[in-house]
Amino acid sequence: MSREYKYELMEEIKNRWSPRAFDPEKPLAEEDIYPLIEAANLAPSAFNSQPRRFIVAADPDSRQKVFDALNEGNQSWTKLVPAFVVFLVKAEDDQGRRSNWAEFDTGTSFGLFTLEAVRRGMHTHAMAGFDGEKIKQNFQLAQGLEPITIVAVGYYGDKRDLPERYQAIERPNARLPLEEMVI
Amino acid sequence: MSREYKYELMEEIKNRWSPRAFDPEKPLAEEDIYPLIEAANLAPSAFNSQPRRFIVAADPDSRQKVFDALNEGNQSWTKLVPAFVVFLVKAEDDQGRRSNWAEFDTGTSFGLFTLEAVRRGMHTHAMAGFDGEKIKQNFQLAQGLEPITIVAVGYYGDKRDLPERYQAIERPNARLPLEEMVI
Repeated sequence: MSREYKYELMEEIKNRWSPRAFDPEKPLAEEDIYPLIEAANLAPSAFNSQPRRFIVAADPDSRQKVFDALNEGNQSWTKLVPAFVVFLVKAEDDQGRRSNWAEFDTGTSFGLFTLEAVRRGMHTHAMAGFDGEKIKQNFQLAQGLEPITIVAVGYYGDKRDLPERYQAIERPNARLPLEEMVI
Repeated sequence: MSREYKYELMEEIKNRWSPRAFDPEKPLAEEDIYPLIEAANLAPSAFNSQPRRFIVAADPDSRQKVFDALNEGNQSWTKLVPAFVVFLVKAEDDQGRRSNWAEFDTGTSFGLFTLEAVRRGMHTHAMAGFDGEKIKQNFQLAQGLEPITIVAVGYYGDKRDLPERYQAIERPNARLPLEEMVI
């Protein structure tokens, strides 16, 4: 690991990073992913609004529908990813009230999701590069559900299976010093 | 606990909730909070932009500056809270590029923060009801830093110390069924 820690921290936090080399020999079923969704669902949210929803894409058909929405760069390394989870923001409640914390709260749920994945020996890699409209079309999403990230989920594989340019950066990336984070 | 779980999950995820009764006899020093900031700082973010900053308010003066920005409802139950952490979103990088994931990423960092707190025997309660402009003034924040949540941090106390209306709701709140969360 290329990171250093000043404090003693939870193993799952120290071991979490966002690799690209996933093991195609270890597929995931929906049942493997549901516990991660339950973990995400236990995250706090403003006024307990729970403004997040999930698409679990583990079967070949759903997986393809997600893959098709990824941009070219992400498609080039996700071919061997066994499953995707799309995080959706549901910013308005059923009375049409919009939460200003919907993205923040959905992010919090991803924090719990990824640590539960690590505890179970898996890894995650959240992607920003995708076509949200394509996700909406491919899954015929109801109005008001906005895809915010597509998360690759699986077990760690072999980085030699990655395109060369990704092999070179297959390591935990660095962080700003703690002192710069605190105002 | 008033929650039920379908799956076996990380203890910290199951034990995390957002209480209001904090123990004033167990104050926190800045050093007790820095490990939680380091945990937060290890969260992933889009393009590793790390678009979050933190105000640690553990000394009486900073604590008061945060307390003054809380709305009346939150002031009524936070009098005994030993410390606050203000989560700030830094949506633009130094080149002026805005991230669409800044709130989401800051939320993810709160997910790691709160689980590390629980592992250390603490609790957190994130609040939405506060005056962000007052935080900016009281701490003379640089342009581009937006307070998104104020988090109460401390050890669990005695719910009889809370105003009555909060005693009645001092328990983990429920979640929507898992099936409703997955599209």
